[in-house]
Amino acid sequence: MHKIDTFVFLLSIQLGKKKPLILVTNDDSINAAGIKVLINTMCEIGDVVVVAPDSPQSGMGHAITLDSPLRLKEIKATGHKEYICSGTPVDCVKLAVNVVLQRKPDLLVSGINHGSNASINVIYSGTMSAAVEGALEGIPAIGFSLLDYAQDADFSVVQKYVKIIAQNALDKGMPRRTCINVNFPSIPEEQLKGVRVCRQANGNWQEEFDVREDPTGKKYYWLTGVFVNYDKGKDTDEWALANGYVSIVPVQYDLTAHHAVPFLNEWSYEI
Amino acid sequence: MHKIDTFVFLLSIQLGKKKPLILVTNDDSINAAGIKVLINTMCEIGDVVVVAPDSPQSGMGHAITLDSPLRLKEIKATGHKEYICSGTPVDCVKLAVNVVLQRKPDLLVSGINHGSNASINVIYSGTMSAAVEGALEGIPAIGFSLLDYAQDADFSVVQKYVKIIAQNALDKGMPRRTCINVNFPSIPEEQLKGVRVCRQANGNWQEEFDVREDPTGKKYYWLTGVFVNYDKGKDTDEWALANGYVSIVPVQYDLTAHHAVPFLNEWSYEI
Repeated sequence: MHKIDTFVFLLSIQLGKKKPLILVTNDDSINAAGIKVLINTMCEIGDVVVVAPDSPQSGMGHAITLDSPLRLKEIKATGHKEYICSGTPVDCVKLAVNVVLQRKPDLLVSGINHGSNASINVIYSGTMSAAVEGALEGIPAIGFSLLDYAQDADFSVVQKYVKIIAQNALDKGMPRRTCINVNFPSIPEEQLKGVRVCRQANGNWQEEFDVREDPTGKKYYWLTGVFVNYDKGKDTDEWALANGYVSIVPVQYDLTAHHAVPFLNEWSYEI
Repeated sequence: MHKIDTFVFLLSIQLGKKKPLILVTNDDSINAAGIKVLINTMCEIGDVVVVAPDSPQSGMGHAITLDSPLRLKEIKATGHKEYICSGTPVDCVKLAVNVVLQRKPDLLVSGINHGSNASINVIYSGTMSAAVEGALEGIPAIGFSLLDYAQDADFSVVQKYVKIIAQNALDKGMPRRTCINVNFPSIPEEQLKGVRVCRQANGNWQEEFDVREDPTGKKYYWLTGVFVNYDKGKDTDEWALANGYVSIVPVQYDLTAHHAVPFLNEWSYEI
């Protein structure tokens, strides 16, 4: 072989050998069943570093910790590196990228969340906000969720899809300034019909506050509610999940409602 | 006049008399200077109810409180109703709509935030998340921010624009499923050139963590960083603010990156 061919050959072996670096996080905390499944699955395809919250952070959205310092602690793990953080899921991503990791990871995966992050849940979800933060850092990023709150939920079929979807992201990357929101219906494998790429359904929570009185007679309020899907479209994540499909929604952090610009240009701004 | 005409005439008088119901909130807490300016300005055009956090909630994004109960307390105020809440800005909106108010408000205003919520700050901002939550509830909603962190910042010119923009929203409503993000440059009135309707600039924070040791020798981390604007466009909020304009960006909560759907449909999902 010529010198140049030998170089390319050796390089390709080198590249072939090098495992991708995968950052794992979630919002249900390091102690959740879902993140353990995700770590095990990612260890099959890459070098894994986990930076996850030390306590549950569900519903934290894109919150960051500004008014108090963060703690970060390495804990013993077999086959991968694992850290716990006192902050939110987004704090975990920022600490991972800026403090823990020596280089930008090839992939960020968040979850597997216990419960749906379809439709409007995406904006309340710490799981998805961690993925969005990854996209902001230019990292291909995926949030995974299973529509089952049980700690002993069956992740066996989910695991297969998680692996193939993560591998796609590693091989093909992600469109710029986006990440993906993957939700799994909680149904047996034989009923699962495949994957649908969708849009976010137009739905919302109808809240009711559970009002109680503490022992001193003062009122306090628990947030409760039911999710309502207003969207009749068959191209939505809610439709896909209700009809036996895994839903994938590409998510962006440019929130500009471009269609509303002409409307606002009609307003009068004379003071 | 005929009976029907009389009825319409009296109804129009009645409607003309009825002041709009305006919900005011923020993320800097009830004690911030910005919300006091906003309350005073809104009292000039409507019946005001304030539900604001009892402590600072900057950077809380769209966080909601799921794992602990919320407290809500009415406090004495002159000319309007005022409540403080132990939760996040989004909690405040949910409590206002579902517990405090007898009917859906005609307008929700959030702020005036001390510091910029332009560009990517929109996703970290509790001020803007409160406005987004308003949009989700079908309420015309506006987040206001002044690019000045000082508690004694000069809001005099800001106040004039806040009034005219709020009046526009009351008169004309908002495009469905959107709210608006209004930022003011911190410059004297004579340098202010007017208002620009913009898109969100493509920018991001480059974080650095300030690492310190506590008295027992354990490390802790403070989040710090600098904002970097990657966007050269003259149609962005960052451009407007840097060039002496008030920026208005319409904001949506449908995060679907529609342009990325074909890309994801090319992936292989065979397990």
